[in-house]
Amino acid sequence: MHRPAAAIAIGPADPPPALLAKAVVEAGAQVTDPAEARGLIWAGTPGQFPDELPASVEWVQLPAAGVEQWFDAGIIANHPKVRFTSAAGAFAASVAEHALMLLLAGVRYLPEQLRAASWRQQDFVPHIGSLRGKTVTIVGAGGIGRALIPMLIPLGAHVIAVNRSGKPVTGPGIPDTIETISTDQLSRVWARTDHVVVAAPATPATTHLIDADVLARLKPSSWIVNIARGSLIDTDALVTALASGAIAGAGLDVTDPEPLPDGHPLWVLPNAIVTPHDSNPPQLRLAAFADHVGANVRRFVAGEELLAPIDPERGY
Amino acid sequence: MHRPAAAIAIGPADPPPALLAKAVVEAGAQVTDPAEARGLIWAGTPGQFPDELPASVEWVQLPAAGVEQWFDAGIIANHPKVRFTSAAGAFAASVAEHALMLLLAGVRYLPEQLRAASWRQQDFVPHIGSLRGKTVTIVGAGGIGRALIPMLIPLGAHVIAVNRSGKPVTGPGIPDTIETISTDQLSRVWARTDHVVVAAPATPATTHLIDADVLARLKPSSWIVNIARGSLIDTDALVTALASGAIAGAGLDVTDPEPLPDGHPLWVLPNAIVTPHDSNPPQLRLAAFADHVGANVRRFVAGEELLAPIDPERGY
Repeated sequence: MHRPAAAIAIGPADPPPALLAKAVVEAGAQVTDPAEARGLIWAGTPGQFPDELPASVEWVQLPAAGVEQWFDAGIIANHPKVRFTSAAGAFAASVAEHALMLLLAGVRYLPEQLRAASWRQQDFVPHIGSLRGKTVTIVGAGGIGRALIPMLIPLGAHVIAVNRSGKPVTGPGIPDTIETISTDQLSRVWARTDHVVVAAPATPATTHLIDADVLARLKPSSWIVNIARGSLIDTDALVTALASGAIAGAGLDVTDPEPLPDGHPLWVLPNAIVTPHDSNPPQLRLAAFADHVGANVRRFVAGEELLAPIDPERGY
Repeated sequence: MHRPAAAIAIGPADPPPALLAKAVVEAGAQVTDPAEARGLIWAGTPGQFPDELPASVEWVQLPAAGVEQWFDAGIIANHPKVRFTSAAGAFAASVAEHALMLLLAGVRYLPEQLRAASWRQQDFVPHIGSLRGKTVTIVGAGGIGRALIPMLIPLGAHVIAVNRSGKPVTGPGIPDTIETISTDQLSRVWARTDHVVVAAPATPATTHLIDADVLARLKPSSWIVNIARGSLIDTDALVTALASGAIAGAGLDVTDPEPLPDGHPLWVLPNAIVTPHDSNPPQLRLAAFADHVGANVRRFVAGEELLAPIDPERGY
């Protein structure tokens, strides 16, 4: 039987979310019934997932970046002939945008300016900085770090990407010329780092990666942004550095402890920006998933390698 | 006599500012005495400019974006055989970066978050927006508008550039696909505009370009950023729109009146961000000029067209 090359179903909602249907169609496919589909875009939970899939389905796109629950529910194992992809990377752009916002707000001295109720131009002008010509070290070059790099390049920043291997970071919008170093070389770059973005996973090895020693090696003009996990920064050391002016400021979407308790010094330090872990809010996720779906449907139609393939052996 | 192709002098300081000398050398030229130079980078005032230039000098780079003073001082007319270039566009990047900061801070609900002294995640999450998939209309596609476009593209924004002619906007980092409309078509795009950046010159025609009527056509989620001149927005209408929630907020580096007087509603409205015309501070200007010098020396060495040529007839 001849099936259209680009028949894609969307489940479980009926009608499917308009944004996903639009993404499928714009990627050159058509939205069909699952019984006729070669690909299935799943917008529901593991619990809603069908026990059996139509024989036509070769590929399933799951809606989560971390897919432990889908493995635990046996869904990957139950369909050994089906290729699964996750949404890993799909939600990174929103967090990267938040990181950029925190960094720019800091460098441009926004916190003090927002508190003003009069035209304090002479007070503020000397404090206005720019990312142009500055070196931003991004610790952790996973989805968020890689999404942030193309946002920093047009601002004229020099980026140092840090990953475990030191293998050059690649990805959409990332220039070949990007400087990548391995985590164990990190201590060598602090002296030429202007600003730091913490975007690494929380592991025993990354606990207090930013400690008093690192903070002492940064500049009085340096901002630190953390959109990863609070534990990567030694909070007490950070408070000391912020209070003494050893660094210029910190923009934190994550804290340690989290939630940050009332009365904590980070709430009152004028050079600390705290947003309560809200860089990836639910209302932005469907649109981000739709972008990811569009990219993967395009690849599926073209017979190219899919983004974020799940390896049944590796478990992610 | 054979002269090195890339002999460039820097005046009037001796020794010249290190940043400028570095830019010249990195652009493939060498810094020489004016008597031997083919190009002269001028970092001083019109009053310091020499009455006569060495016969070897073919090109002079002036340090200002607006060069009325240089014309008024007769400097352009006194050297009819010399090509002059201005620094037009050189200082645009800093202002564009400021505009991006204001827009991101607004869309990501930073003002309310900065005022918090406790972990109000549930209050804030519904208000966190993103530029991804949003349409940003940039009114005025001069240096600042053109510098802003490449900063918005990696964030996934759709940009509508507005200029007088409607001729497609071009420039470094600006995709061919950019949508450009002419000012007289502006009324047609408000309905599909999410956010507005005002970057047009102040002229009688642009006074109150953003008035009550335009504000009424924007969305409750719309932010307006003004980094041009305060007069382009009807301040009273803006205050009304901000207070009623007709639009989400405004990020203003310029105001009308300016300076904004103490007690003005814009100082207390929670959705107004005011920075006191500090988007292009002096400490960033030398670095920006050095970037411009580097780009022009590279072009001079390669025999290419120079950036920001001054036309003695036009007067700019």
